[in-house]
Amino acid sequence: MSLLHGISASNGIAIAKAYRFVEPDLSFSKKTVEDIPEELSRFQSAVSISKSELESIRDTAAKGLGADEAAIFDAHILVLLDPELLTSIEDKIKTDHVNAEHALKETSDMFITMFEQMDNEYMRERASDIRDVAKRLLSHLLNVEIVNPSMISEKVIIIAEDLTPSDTAQLNREFVKGFTTNIGGKTSHSAIMARTLEIPAVVGTKEATKLIQDGDIIIVDGFKGEVHINPTPDVIATYENEQLKYEQQKAEWTKLVDEKTTTADGHHVELAANIGTPEDLEGVISNGGEGIGLYRTEFLYMGRNQLPTEEEQYEAYKKVLQGMSGKPVVVRTLDIGGDKELPYLNLPKEMNPFLGLRAIRLCLEEQDIFRTQLRALLRASSYGNLKIMFPMIATLDEFRQAKAILEEEKQELLNNNINVATTIEVGIMVEIPSTAILADQFAKEVDFFSIGTNDLIQYTMAADRMNERVAYLYQPYNPAILRLVKMVIDASHKEGKWTGMCGEMAGDEIAIPLLLGLGLDEFSMSATSILKARTQILKLNKSDMVELANEALQMSTAEDVVQAVMARSNL
Amino acid sequence: MSLLHGISASNGIAIAKAYRFVEPDLSFSKKTVEDIPEELSRFQSAVSISKSELESIRDTAAKGLGADEAAIFDAHILVLLDPELLTSIEDKIKTDHVNAEHALKETSDMFITMFEQMDNEYMRERASDIRDVAKRLLSHLLNVEIVNPSMISEKVIIIAEDLTPSDTAQLNREFVKGFTTNIGGKTSHSAIMARTLEIPAVVGTKEATKLIQDGDIIIVDGFKGEVHINPTPDVIATYENEQLKYEQQKAEWTKLVDEKTTTADGHHVELAANIGTPEDLEGVISNGGEGIGLYRTEFLYMGRNQLPTEEEQYEAYKKVLQGMSGKPVVVRTLDIGGDKELPYLNLPKEMNPFLGLRAIRLCLEEQDIFRTQLRALLRASSYGNLKIMFPMIATLDEFRQAKAILEEEKQELLNNNINVATTIEVGIMVEIPSTAILADQFAKEVDFFSIGTNDLIQYTMAADRMNERVAYLYQPYNPAILRLVKMVIDASHKEGKWTGMCGEMAGDEIAIPLLLGLGLDEFSMSATSILKARTQILKLNKSDMVELANEALQMSTAEDVVQAVMARSNL
Repeated sequence: MSLLHGISASNGIAIAKAYRFVEPDLSFSKKTVEDIPEELSRFQSAVSISKSELESIRDTAAKGLGADEAAIFDAHILVLLDPELLTSIEDKIKTDHVNAEHALKETSDMFITMFEQMDNEYMRERASDIRDVAKRLLSHLLNVEIVNPSMISEKVIIIAEDLTPSDTAQLNREFVKGFTTNIGGKTSHSAIMARTLEIPAVVGTKEATKLIQDGDIIIVDGFKGEVHINPTPDVIATYENEQLKYEQQKAEWTKLVDEKTTTADGHHVELAANIGTPEDLEGVISNGGEGIGLYRTEFLYMGRNQLPTEEEQYEAYKKVLQGMSGKPVVVRTLDIGGDKELPYLNLPKEMNPFLGLRAIRLCLEEQDIFRTQLRALLRASSYGNLKIMFPMIATLDEFRQAKAILEEEKQELLNNNINVATTIEVGIMVEIPSTAILADQFAKEVDFFSIGTNDLIQYTMAADRMNERVAYLYQPYNPAILRLVKMVIDASHKEGKWTGMCGEMAGDEIAIPLLLGLGLDEFSMSATSILKARTQILKLNKSDMVELANEALQMSTAEDVVQAVMARSNL
Repeated sequence: MSLLHGISASNGIAIAKAYRFVEPDLSFSKKTVEDIPEELSRFQSAVSISKSELESIRDTAAKGLGADEAAIFDAHILVLLDPELLTSIEDKIKTDHVNAEHALKETSDMFITMFEQMDNEYMRERASDIRDVAKRLLSHLLNVEIVNPSMISEKVIIIAEDLTPSDTAQLNREFVKGFTTNIGGKTSHSAIMARTLEIPAVVGTKEATKLIQDGDIIIVDGFKGEVHINPTPDVIATYENEQLKYEQQKAEWTKLVDEKTTTADGHHVELAANIGTPEDLEGVISNGGEGIGLYRTEFLYMGRNQLPTEEEQYEAYKKVLQGMSGKPVVVRTLDIGGDKELPYLNLPKEMNPFLGLRAIRLCLEEQDIFRTQLRALLRASSYGNLKIMFPMIATLDEFRQAKAILEEEKQELLNNNINVATTIEVGIMVEIPSTAILADQFAKEVDFFSIGTNDLIQYTMAADRMNERVAYLYQPYNPAILRLVKMVIDASHKEGKWTGMCGEMAGDEIAIPLLLGLGLDEFSMSATSILKARTQILKLNKSDMVELANEALQMSTAEDVVQAVMARSNL
């Protein structure tokens, strides 16, 4: 047995077999072949294995994930059976006397280049289908297994270098009990997804994929950030006990699902959830979320080959608004760039992407993309309580431009007799220092603020939140951060507006007493953190926390603040 | 004739012939050669041309630049005459029947790899000598000229993609009358160097190297940020007139060299200079600098193959302190990382280098480097009025650590009976938002602040100052920036300390009225901006500027601020 240390990304305990989700080694050399019929038969057998494999994946996907996902594999089957591709490969084997791997690679590369250069969006997508199919054929020629996470059919713990949003989208939630990755931090996408999916996870273990083999027994301790590899029966028994206790605690929390979140001295705050897709709604409701404080719409744009249509977006937004039955839903417009790329937009590489053309900056430049999203949102608005929020606003001028575009689209829809809700609050993320510092000016023009602490902390401290070398500077409790939070909240209240927070800090048990004291109105967090936060807030006195916060604002370091919170809030 | 538009990087007009400072195309193909003796003789003649060229460069360097620079070329000559290298190349030509270019490349690459892997610092440096010599040999084999900027012997305007600090170090100041680059902005190194060297420059022209040929007549208009290519005689005459007028204006300013900088209503501020090397002192004194507000020590570390020794640093610091004859000299400790790399430190690549392990963060990790610099500074301190400044401080904890290390080194020197000045002020750059926001806490422990606006603006606005796609967000006059500046100044005054500014903003004519109104004590800028700034300040009333600044602090956009300044400060 051995023990790996990482970063706790999502609470809970998972015990299951390891499933390595690792890119296979598909390297090969070009060879001259003498026995052409033998080589052709090797190739044909790879084709027929690939075909039956794709059919089986397609059927599983249709049941577990839905028709859209299944259609992807139908397209792959069509490519696989395309006589033009197959004949070209076989011809190459025959005339050049080369091995099937080489013939496949040369031919598929040629087709991919050809399709990629076409003017037609539909044809360009075919390039990526050919790439996927060629990879599958190659794996069968080389007898190497490629991982099919959608085919997992027993309880497993995923072991990976990292998980991208599209990787996690493929995971079957029923069987994936936990995961651990080599890289990443508390605010990386894999960590956020783990909390949304309510599965225990430890990220940043550096060498999980090196030390863990398929089938090893793994314990993921999402509380401590530890991963046990092939533990002794004693350790397993201890953890099974922990697991049980956590289940009991969760059951206890569940009694608070329908409670309001009110402090011991009667002050009410709203506990909302951060979501990425309409599928996350179930968790929000079962965890007693009083609203959606952040709907990250970029997932609609990711893991695909082209922009989502207005109709697709409209359907997603409508589903979320209806699902929340009139409770507030804050939708953040597209936040792409920085650590989130959309390969199909072909954006230029930047030296410092976190300080580059991200989010609203990109939307104001690529207005077609922005306007399509705004129309979809406006059309969906009549199905619930929509609030629209612009990300990465740095200047009032940007907000005014974005708002003006929204108004134009709204007027256009109304002119065409399309239903739009009469009141839609329009607010901004406060995640850039300049905006927090000028919050009093912004408060006159916006309807609400939501503080995005992940970015606000990284810019205020000038420390990349994904860079482990400067991780010591990612300080949510630094008095400078608390002062910015206070500026924002005070500015909004002075103008009769409200302030929420949708960064990781909002669900953090050390931050909650401080935020309560600073007067935060809405706390938006992973759905799975809501009941725990509610339990904590019910026991706190707002007036005590105001005192605590005022003291913290006058402290000089984050460590001093943490000590003060520990001493005064029963932690 | 044609006209290029770029960014004004350094004031003034230059008219001269173009000198393209562009990497030559040294590509070639491997070829089989039949006539071996002919190929060997081609190679030997490249060796002998290279030798006489290197000797000539060595002699020029010894006269113009000094013994250290000349020694570099002596090392190159030794490499060139190393029989082991030459014989290996000749053997390869003979046995493999390949062209000399290929034999040279293969052999030199092998030697470079071998030397790079050695444990010995001295041997590793040889790798870079071999690389330089191989490049020179290759250029002669291919009959391509490689540029030798140190060999320029007539008045020219340099045309380049970009100029690195080590490029500019090689330029002969006597003959380089101006330059223009394809990339860069107002705060890039090439721009800063141009202002220090007092040569007109236009950066960011995008296609200067494409449109300008060697020998074209060029006018660099550093005021408007324009470059004229082969202008008509009329245009040249107009510009010669402009040039004359500017010389006259400068002569007018020169009368103020020995004046104090005092506003019309009798308030004194200090105008200091930013410098990069001891050679810049001359310009500081001739422009009436009242001190050095920023000595960027990183130039000591750049354009070389290993760290500077304590002795080398000591000599440089001593020269600057003595040269300023008791006037204040603020030395910034090593600020490396971000846009400034030191290849020989082999630092890992970062995703967002501006948010990475830079400056003091690196120094606290690599303490040997830091301690060597501090010892050199402390030993030099008795020769003048030294103030030590730490860059990129984000938390009080970092300042305390840095200060403690300084105290340790000081105690160690005193224990060894080495002279150290009795009072050395120790301050920090304020260039990270968290530090400006917590300035009241810092002011209790530091002796002074110097606001580094280039970085402070980029972090506060979350916009890479080198990225032209977000250039619209680089807003020195944004009220959020002004509020941070005010927090810092007020905090220092409350504790009886002083605040300077050493970013580009300090010398900007629109910013000066605001900074005066906010109470800034010291303005540090390019030496060449000092007399112009003094002329401006002599005419302003401090009390009016306080009013102006207070109004600006309550405005909502940078445009509003600029309009208010224009209206109220005679600009």
